[in-house]
Amino acid sequence: MSDAHEPLANIGALTFDVFGTVVDWRSSVIGEGQALGRARGLDIDWAAFADAWRGGYAPAMDRVRHGELPWTRLDDLHRMTLDRLLEDFGIAERLDETDKAHLNRVWHRLDPWPDSVAGMQRLRRRFILATLSNGNVSLLVNMAKHAGLSWDCVLSAELAGHYKRDPEVYHKAAELLDLPPSRIMMVAAHQDDLQAAYQEGFRTAFVKRPLEHGPEAEVDLSVDPRFDVVANDFLDLADQLVGPPSDTP
Amino acid sequence: MSDAHEPLANIGALTFDVFGTVVDWRSSVIGEGQALGRARGLDIDWAAFADAWRGGYAPAMDRVRHGELPWTRLDDLHRMTLDRLLEDFGIAERLDETDKAHLNRVWHRLDPWPDSVAGMQRLRRRFILATLSNGNVSLLVNMAKHAGLSWDCVLSAELAGHYKRDPEVYHKAAELLDLPPSRIMMVAAHQDDLQAAYQEGFRTAFVKRPLEHGPEAEVDLSVDPRFDVVANDFLDLADQLVGPPSDTP
Repeated sequence: MSDAHEPLANIGALTFDVFGTVVDWRSSVIGEGQALGRARGLDIDWAAFADAWRGGYAPAMDRVRHGELPWTRLDDLHRMTLDRLLEDFGIAERLDETDKAHLNRVWHRLDPWPDSVAGMQRLRRRFILATLSNGNVSLLVNMAKHAGLSWDCVLSAELAGHYKRDPEVYHKAAELLDLPPSRIMMVAAHQDDLQAAYQEGFRTAFVKRPLEHGPEAEVDLSVDPRFDVVANDFLDLADQLVGPPSDTP
Repeated sequence: MSDAHEPLANIGALTFDVFGTVVDWRSSVIGEGQALGRARGLDIDWAAFADAWRGGYAPAMDRVRHGELPWTRLDDLHRMTLDRLLEDFGIAERLDETDKAHLNRVWHRLDPWPDSVAGMQRLRRRFILATLSNGNVSLLVNMAKHAGLSWDCVLSAELAGHYKRDPEVYHKAAELLDLPPSRIMMVAAHQDDLQAAYQEGFRTAFVKRPLEHGPEAEVDLSVDPRFDVVANDFLDLADQLVGPPSDTP
């Protein structure tokens, strides 16, 4: 549980959820899928494909969490789901192994939300910025190169051998940053991630990403009163945590 | 062993030794020691102190390597050596715990060699740049903030639970970067680090740091013919790996 007496001014590091919070996975996957479809003459609904692929994410991690699979990095879970979806969408025979391997790594090539890079640049002058993602380390490193993101540290479920929202992931982050949880703020668009971080003593910043699941999806934007900060995007988060741009040295 | 047929053009990541290769630990420790000495009226030979502190580094890691100590991060090994040296130099009673804890973290505040930041900026446009250091993750993250270094990934002995030159450290780096060792180049000023990386299949770049142990110390600058690249500093390394500055986009 957070120590409510620890002021926000003592925060040393921000740990970020990545998929959906920093990058717009859905538009990126749809865009690459459509380009591949045009190149290979595949006429499928790539938005449905993207949603189904992401929909396979939690159940795949649950198989690891429940011991049905040994530790398996996200690239390999993505590939298991992809192979099933290619069958379901009737295009498994239309793509060769090179296409499939490349498509699977679309998660390394996701584009940031429009405010992500600029907001993080301002936040990085004051805080240590680290990923705290279920993506494997190489995925996060490649994505940062692609998206122009600069992290002080790439932390991942892979380093804990546990997926969020298992508490071990948050413990490992605090251990590696060598900070008490009360000096770390989890930044995420997902309430359950923040609630799990809160349970381990982290501070929490909820960033609203109403378009994560597309313009027509309903997203839970209600605010848990335990969250320390609620922001509309990373520029707003920077305004709240480091002050307006002109005050940033 | 390196696959001699894998061209250097296929290298995806450079992994850097840090102490002595990227940062000038000796001048930094001497400088902070002298400032502390002036503030506390301690008249000791801070160059001898710095050398003795660094001299305790390999024996302390050997205690972990041989199982005499469980896994212990470098901050804590540094502190064990520091406490002994403060006694040896007769100043243990002259510093309070705050001073000692701050002095111990001088290794988080080391200054880079004059060419490090500029050389790395050029190299980073082409390659993934990662630390591969015996320093713990938080030490490396804090040092990067202090020194103005930008890493794509902070890799550490701490993530392997083994200190260099144990092979597990190099294996863990390749696993986390998800690259075959032949596509990773170890960059170091220390021949034994490069030779250990070579044994695990890494490419090697030897960067000469003749002043690491001070202007009067002799440093082995002989070149092992197995090294792929030999450079005088990071600017020279960038010249050799990415071409002259004007060719860098």
